[in-house]
Amino acid sequence: MRIISADSGAALLNERYEAQSIVAVVSVLVESPYRVAQKYVAEPIFSKVANSHELIVHELELCQTLLRETKADVVHLDMSFGGALMEELSPIQLSNVSSKARGYILKILPKLRKIAADIKRVYGIEVLAIGKDSVPVRIAELTAGACAILYAAEKAVREKQCVVLGMPSKCYARRIENGIVVHSLTSAEHDIVGSAADSEGVLAKVTFSELLNPCARGFRALEITPKLGST
Amino acid sequence: MRIISADSGAALLNERYEAQSIVAVVSVLVESPYRVAQKYVAEPIFSKVANSHELIVHELELCQTLLRETKADVVHLDMSFGGALMEELSPIQLSNVSSKARGYILKILPKLRKIAADIKRVYGIEVLAIGKDSVPVRIAELTAGACAILYAAEKAVREKQCVVLGMPSKCYARRIENGIVVHSLTSAEHDIVGSAADSEGVLAKVTFSELLNPCARGFRALEITPKLGST
Amino acid sequence: MRIISADSGAALLNERYEAQSIVAVVSVLVESPYRVAQKYVAEPIFSKVANSHELIVHELELCQTLLRETKADVVHLDMSFGGALMEELSPIQLSNVSSKARGYILKILPKLRKIAADIKRVYGIEVLAIGKDSVPVRIAELTAGACAILYAAEKAVREKQCVVLGMPSKCYARRIENGIVVHSLTSAEHDIVGSAADSEGVLAKVTFSELLNPCARGFRALEITPKLGST
Repeated sequence: MRIISADSGAALLNERYEAQSIVAVVSVLVESPYRVAQKYVAEPIFSKVANSHELIVHELELCQTLLRETKADVVHLDMSFGGALMEELSPIQLSNVSSKARGYILKILPKLRKIAADIKRVYGIEVLAIGKDSVPVRIAELTAGACAILYAAEKAVREKQCVVLGMPSKCYARRIENGIVVHSLTSAEHDIVGSAADSEGVLAKVTFSELLNPCARGFRALEITPKLGST
Repeated sequence: MRIISADSGAALLNERYEAQSIVAVVSVLVESPYRVAQKYVAEPIFSKVANSHELIVHELELCQTLLRETKADVVHLDMSFGGALMEELSPIQLSNVSSKARGYILKILPKLRKIAADIKRVYGIEVLAIGKDSVPVRIAELTAGACAILYAAEKAVREKQCVVLGMPSKCYARRIENGIVVHSLTSAEHDIVGSAADSEGVLAKVTFSELLNPCARGFRALEITPKLGST
Repeated sequence: MRIISADSGAALLNERYEAQSIVAVVSVLVESPYRVAQKYVAEPIFSKVANSHELIVHELELCQTLLRETKADVVHLDMSFGGALMEELSPIQLSNVSSKARGYILKILPKLRKIAADIKRVYGIEVLAIGKDSVPVRIAELTAGACAILYAAEKAVREKQCVVLGMPSKCYARRIENGIVVHSLTSAEHDIVGSAADSEGVLAKVTFSELLNPCARGFRALEITPKLGST
């Protein structure tokens, strides 16, 4: 099965390790054995955490972008409704959701259903609200983490100051020859990774230091510091 | 302590990675340090997933079978009621359970209480509804996974076609000289395994390929393909 | 950030692997990258499990003890109320808590608020009810596990009999030259440890054997046996 999925993630942290803005949104194509993205599109967003519930619309739009250049059998969206068809998701199915979250979802539901219907019409495939049960959603999350490291490093170099990037849940980053690989640390996900190519060579201009977010168990952070003299 | 436990598990998957039938049921004897089964009995069942709630009765019957040939101090059943005595479990204690699950349990509760009372009378030991808290239940689950690989391989060879076997939660399979070892990938269970002896030599007649179930995070699957010319 | 935290933990088990008494309480100082305690104070307590809900008061007092000898920016308490300020925690915020737990908390809440107010007045720092979200609380738990091994070993030697010590959730103990290191086995915590120095040389007088608590998945136990002729 060829699965397209998307997620946004990694966040700039303030001094108290609180998330301030979401850094990257990505869409990925994943195929059997479902361990890594075959293809991805990514964007820097630096979106206020307060508005992050609206990012799901942009995530689905990015799936459309990827669908224009590659074929797939299904789309996995990062909303956890047991794999329900997005096109048919109705306010009644939100009864288990907290009233605050329901308010957010109701605001974006018409847009999501509209895009899901477009995808069905144009490409003949379904959009599933599968969220936390989906491996491709997790791969999208890790890929967003890898891309976010590059975007945050560019920002650190441009603004000549250190940034602290909170990584997605339970993962760690490893520098490779020409990019970044983010490995899952969730149990039974030892072979799932996200990666990003450093085409601009920004990694050569920064140093990294890993720490554990003391106020959020399971979340690691990277202190990214521009090297002296980098531009 | 000598603990007897049982579980059924591993499932044949369809093309959309949905479980179709449960492959194996096993009963195990586990002793300190509680890492592996000292002894087991297993049966291929290939039981429809829709009927899987009734398998718990057969699991307890298999514990009886094992009790006929070995001594034990207690029986751990895969029902999660905080370790309550099975013999005394009453409909009142099911108040926290969803109404659908309660319906299933009420149907089989008389049978389970009857077998538990028999075990108490004949062997003088208790049956505990301990489920997810029990390490022996987990070892039974992994052992069922190992046995299911052999049963699914036999089926693939017999029917001359590839099968996809969904493994139990958070584990992976490893071929050894004369059988299969299934290792837990749950955190803090790195030294817990289930295993099965390949007395029929079926493993020589198939090849394996591991993949991640894309629609069920934490679950791996094995594609089992008969070798050309095997019978 | 310099964070002071505390926890009590590790428990003597009976023959059925049920916790009987909590062995150690510790307070720790943790700094970036938040992987280990820079400093700790510990006490053997051997407190009945039935009274363990009152230990939280003693944990906070031990934070005060540590604050007398070292500076810190915040205190993390092992109560999970989303990081609320302890000083301002009111009975209203306990509405999500089970009625039994609420009863316990209401009994100790005045004392906790009083100590939190004292800490604020004297040291100018807040006490947060952050519990399960805090990495320093986890480091305190592992450090309590390490100290408990020493205390339990002393008890075994003194009373010339084997004891079975139930370790904190998802961790294992490793003997080093002059003490004990307890490693987390929780996913994404592979580099978090607690440790204790064996200044009395008690470890030379005992042998260890690790087992899995069969009735509590994720919990390991140590059988600690005095060597013949040790005093």
